[in-house]
Amino acid sequence: MEVIHSPQNALYKLCHKLAAHRRDRLKQKKTLLDGTHLVAAALDASWVIEKLLVTPEGLDNPEVAGLVKTSAVTPTLLEPALFKSLSELPSPTGLLALVSIPDNALVRKQGLCLLLDGVQDPGNVGSILRTAAAAGVDQVLLSDQCADLWSPKVLRAGMGAHFVLDLVERADLLQFADQFAGPIAALMLEDAQDLYAATLTGDLALVMGSEGQGVSADMAARASLRLTIPMQPGIESLNVGAAAAICLYECVRQTRLR
Amino acid sequence: MEVIHSPQNALYKLCHKLAAHRRDRLKQKKTLLDGTHLVAAALDASWVIEKLLVTPEGLDNPEVAGLVKTSAVTPTLLEPALFKSLSELPSPTGLLALVSIPDNALVRKQGLCLLLDGVQDPGNVGSILRTAAAAGVDQVLLSDQCADLWSPKVLRAGMGAHFVLDLVERADLLQFADQFAGPIAALMLEDAQDLYAATLTGDLALVMGSEGQGVSADMAARASLRLTIPMQPGIESLNVGAAAAICLYECVRQTRLR
Repeated sequence: MEVIHSPQNALYKLCHKLAAHRRDRLKQKKTLLDGTHLVAAALDASWVIEKLLVTPEGLDNPEVAGLVKTSAVTPTLLEPALFKSLSELPSPTGLLALVSIPDNALVRKQGLCLLLDGVQDPGNVGSILRTAAAAGVDQVLLSDQCADLWSPKVLRAGMGAHFVLDLVERADLLQFADQFAGPIAALMLEDAQDLYAATLTGDLALVMGSEGQGVSADMAARASLRLTIPMQPGIESLNVGAAAAICLYECVRQTRLR
Repeated sequence: MEVIHSPQNALYKLCHKLAAHRRDRLKQKKTLLDGTHLVAAALDASWVIEKLLVTPEGLDNPEVAGLVKTSAVTPTLLEPALFKSLSELPSPTGLLALVSIPDNALVRKQGLCLLLDGVQDPGNVGSILRTAAAAGVDQVLLSDQCADLWSPKVLRAGMGAHFVLDLVERADLLQFADQFAGPIAALMLEDAQDLYAATLTGDLALVMGSEGQGVSADMAARASLRLTIPMQPGIESLNVGAAAAICLYECVRQTRLR
């Protein structure tokens, strides 16, 4: 088993770049999965693990040892101090996987699609992906202004949703809207109809805007439905992850009634 | 106008403790509101601001200057380096308010109540409070294991919800459940009925469990309704903020139909 002691090691240096910078993830088309939960989810979804990095303590953990065995990858041992510099987890589990970022899915023209128009907080993007997976969304498209889909923080908040969703990053949402078969429904705060008065079954593209500015003017202009979530007087808005959950599950509820 | 240059200043030292430690917030019954949005929300809700701390740059911002004027409090100037050590915001707005933490509300026995049973992530607690305010929840009760309601992170994620909600922290949820007039509905992953098959109008206490363990065994034993959110096969769970939003807005939807 190879053991990495030095920060000058080529694999360590690659991993360090991938953990820290979007541009390196884009250039290498690789990312890191941090912790047993994500690695298990990737293995469940039959993803190819290219490298496994473990600490000596990690290998003593039966869960880590089991995942190493399942992966059929010979792990690389990493000194704990080096490992820690690659992990954002408050208590690292001692297991990291290096994987290739898949190509974008083919853009859909039908189904239930979720468009993220500049959602910037990694925790929000991850939580929304998790909800989309649970709700059975057919495709999630993210504009270039969104948090990086394959960053450690988004992966962590996504809790494995990345491995089961049909994803398109750096998507041209305007072009998508022009070609989509069903209505484009944008969540807005003004000039919009009550979510619960709208029909949300069949082909539908739901657009969620950024935390600060909401849906961009160009996308709002493409929307055939402008939806709003009813709120108590004096309340300005909801967290975008909460708003996405409310809208997507109203789609689920209506679809199940059909 | 008083100007604080030294980290030995008593007001600065107090604020530093309040920003960092729950035990100091509990002992002093005070906390800090960081940034123009929270200070504006507190003033809108007629909260008493005890002190305002501003940077020289902050005072040049018309929004800050307007809030200082509205508050009728003579601000204390703080050197930017000292100010920065009190703020968690990536770009501090240059305005902090010192306020007293209100006493717990009287525990309700009726209405729509939300019980947080060990929700630990400050961002989740804040987002849930924001949703609860929008949905018109009558009271939110937090067990002692929850993230500190009055911490800077929860306040920030709450976006002002703290000032409009009826709140009970360090609540005895079991005692609440024994005295509450309506059903106690716990969100569970197993042995539970579909959310959309349940009647969620009238007096209702909705229990959301912790991120890792869910609803505690003692609370689950008190629940007269066990609810689950329908999810695609293979998906384990939702973010608790998303789950709370889905459940609370199903209450809103059903209540509006009555």
